[in-house]
Amino acid sequence: MPVLVMKFGGTSVATLDRIRRAAKRVGVEVAKGYDVIVIVSAMSGKTNELVGWVNETSPLYDAREYDAVVSSGENVTAGLMALTLQEMDVPARSWQGWQVPLKTTSAHGAARIQEIPTGNITAKFSEGMRVAVVAGFQGVSPEGRITTLGRGGSDTTAVAFAAAFGAERCDIYTDVDGVYTTDPRVEAKARKLDKIAFEEMLELASLGAKVLQTRSVELAMRYNVRLRVLSSFEEQSDNAGTLVCAEEDIMESKVVAGVAFSRDEAKMTLVSVADRPGIAATIFTALSEAGVNVDMIVQNIAEEGRTDMTWSCPTDQVTRAEKAMAEAKAEGVINFHDIIADTDVAKVSVVGIGMRSHTGVAAKMFKCLSDEGINIRVITTSEIKISVLIDRKYMELAVQALHDAFELDKAA
Amino acid sequence: MPVLVMKFGGTSVATLDRIRRAAKRVGVEVAKGYDVIVIVSAMSGKTNELVGWVNETSPLYDAREYDAVVSSGENVTAGLMALTLQEMDVPARSWQGWQVPLKTTSAHGAARIQEIPTGNITAKFSEGMRVAVVAGFQGVSPEGRITTLGRGGSDTTAVAFAAAFGAERCDIYTDVDGVYTTDPRVEAKARKLDKIAFEEMLELASLGAKVLQTRSVELAMRYNVRLRVLSSFEEQSDNAGTLVCAEEDIMESKVVAGVAFSRDEAKMTLVSVADRPGIAATIFTALSEAGVNVDMIVQNIAEEGRTDMTWSCPTDQVTRAEKAMAEAKAEGVINFHDIIADTDVAKVSVVGIGMRSHTGVAAKMFKCLSDEGINIRVITTSEIKISVLIDRKYMELAVQALHDAFELDKAA
Repeated sequence: MPVLVMKFGGTSVATLDRIRRAAKRVGVEVAKGYDVIVIVSAMSGKTNELVGWVNETSPLYDAREYDAVVSSGENVTAGLMALTLQEMDVPARSWQGWQVPLKTTSAHGAARIQEIPTGNITAKFSEGMRVAVVAGFQGVSPEGRITTLGRGGSDTTAVAFAAAFGAERCDIYTDVDGVYTTDPRVEAKARKLDKIAFEEMLELASLGAKVLQTRSVELAMRYNVRLRVLSSFEEQSDNAGTLVCAEEDIMESKVVAGVAFSRDEAKMTLVSVADRPGIAATIFTALSEAGVNVDMIVQNIAEEGRTDMTWSCPTDQVTRAEKAMAEAKAEGVINFHDIIADTDVAKVSVVGIGMRSHTGVAAKMFKCLSDEGINIRVITTSEIKISVLIDRKYMELAVQALHDAFELDKAA
Repeated sequence: MPVLVMKFGGTSVATLDRIRRAAKRVGVEVAKGYDVIVIVSAMSGKTNELVGWVNETSPLYDAREYDAVVSSGENVTAGLMALTLQEMDVPARSWQGWQVPLKTTSAHGAARIQEIPTGNITAKFSEGMRVAVVAGFQGVSPEGRITTLGRGGSDTTAVAFAAAFGAERCDIYTDVDGVYTTDPRVEAKARKLDKIAFEEMLELASLGAKVLQTRSVELAMRYNVRLRVLSSFEEQSDNAGTLVCAEEDIMESKVVAGVAFSRDEAKMTLVSVADRPGIAATIFTALSEAGVNVDMIVQNIAEEGRTDMTWSCPTDQVTRAEKAMAEAKAEGVINFHDIIADTDVAKVSVVGIGMRSHTGVAAKMFKCLSDEGINIRVITTSEIKISVLIDRKYMELAVQALHDAFELDKAA
């Protein structure tokens, strides 16, 4: 029988009632003829409670013990989900990471999946079991200790199982009903997308749309796992939610798929840097070593032999960046007149695989912003994305204007 | 290095503060030169929460899933205890049942321990680890699924580890500071015993003294594991608590070690049963099949060819017993005139290995009760125990009088 993977996040299994609701969804897919692998998170709040205990006990904790403690939340949900399915007469059993076994590296707290042997679960499917409920977010190291996969680990578990079992699809049930052209709280006309390409989803995820973790999308893209994002709080038709899939599976798409934004950006400028070969490398090596995640970079020629260097980074890394630059100046490695930090900026981006074959997207974006009187501070582009840094007070205006300009409220 | 097993129950690890307190006790033993195996229960209340969820989800639950869910509480405590010890610079790590592996039967919810391979933990001890923190109450079945050991499982885990590792002693930390000559709430002069023989402890445990589970005492006796019961809420000297040990290790002991009692007893009488060979077997087989735990049995000759048959059983099994007898009468298997249930009785027992070599204990007991005007309803005896059923209203009086008569307030 074809295999389907279904993943339920913490809010979708927060109470016994919600677990029942999720189990009903699983029952619907079983009735259609699927063998189902269900990946569950801990009941929402449970992981935070466990993490809190670990931090209070041992601020610089042994990550192996952290994993042993924190993984227990998913084990509870997996057992309860299996029991709920059994109550509905669906043959089901739970699996903890070590029972599969989901083999990972020994990087406790942020382990990477190495192998998922399919033998144990496949044997049970052939004996008539219809649902394998797997505790997400966890695995077992070569040393036989429990590991956790870190942020987004449950989504990643789901995608990895879908790849290992050649699943027809991997459905991620969450508290939103799909991927939107932009955040509906900023633009009421935002439209849910039926389909989106992996590459677009990756750009949107890394730009601040929090529906799926980047890591799980990357894995899905590598193994061509069809991912569907949908809500566990609504009755669902077969075409509900948003399908994240290969570009080839999207017949006709718009040039621009969505508008993303991030408030959490700061613009920093080193004023009048003594220009010489390798100066950019020197600056950004120092920032990197200080743990500053530089995003956009712009260099202007200010005067003969001197230049201004501008970059953006997360707001909470500004102090760290200033300290790193002051130290580099004190050591004589870099020479500059001043350092300016502007935390009153925001990043707005348009994303779409159609940009590869369509010209004029950048021009249209800049004209749209100019028509609204919005000044662009910094520009960066990738093959399928154009990002601009603007004053934060114009962010909502820019998102709405771009959503209109690219007619994202209309279907392709 | 010599191995010591220390077990901490739910109230002893109920909060992070109490875990720290328990860890300090472990640190003291490590400093003395022991390699320590710590067995932990779930934080008190946690197991009940998990059991509640399972029951609400599935009243007739799959015991395998029950075990997978319920065992998670001990895993949390084990990890937190290991972290706490590490914070105190004591090299420690946690072990879940399957990691040891503690091998059990497949009788989920009430599994029996089959084997505890010592290789993994011993190897870590020889690498310099000083404390192995083991999640109590759990193991792994031949099928690779998580099992739990049922009532008293954590005490049993501790004793089994002590036997497997040839531990010098197994310390059971609990919320009382030892085994008493009787319940101090009934007799203020009750005295804590320094030592008690396994056989006496077994009789006391099964007679209602709730300090140790019968099962763990049986196991300790079979493998001659020296058990010590002591409080985790008091500063402890080396000779604190009560040592439960082989008879040979107790140099001099009193004839009677303690007085036990149970309120939860009912006396039932079948009046005027038609007497014939095998009638007792017929009656008690029927009761056994109905799930009635018969304790004491007395038969009186009432008249020619007829007899009265009296037994005691737990109060909450009276209805069941009456039903079983009524059915047997209706089927013509047993013939009797009437059935009388008296739930206003209590059982009081004196226990002591000294009875084996001393005569006159029964006479002294009966005289003592008679002096207080207490009528004895039923008597039973074993090699080291004499039990009587009396009216419940005299129970406290009987316990106090017997405690005095056998001078239990004075040391041996």
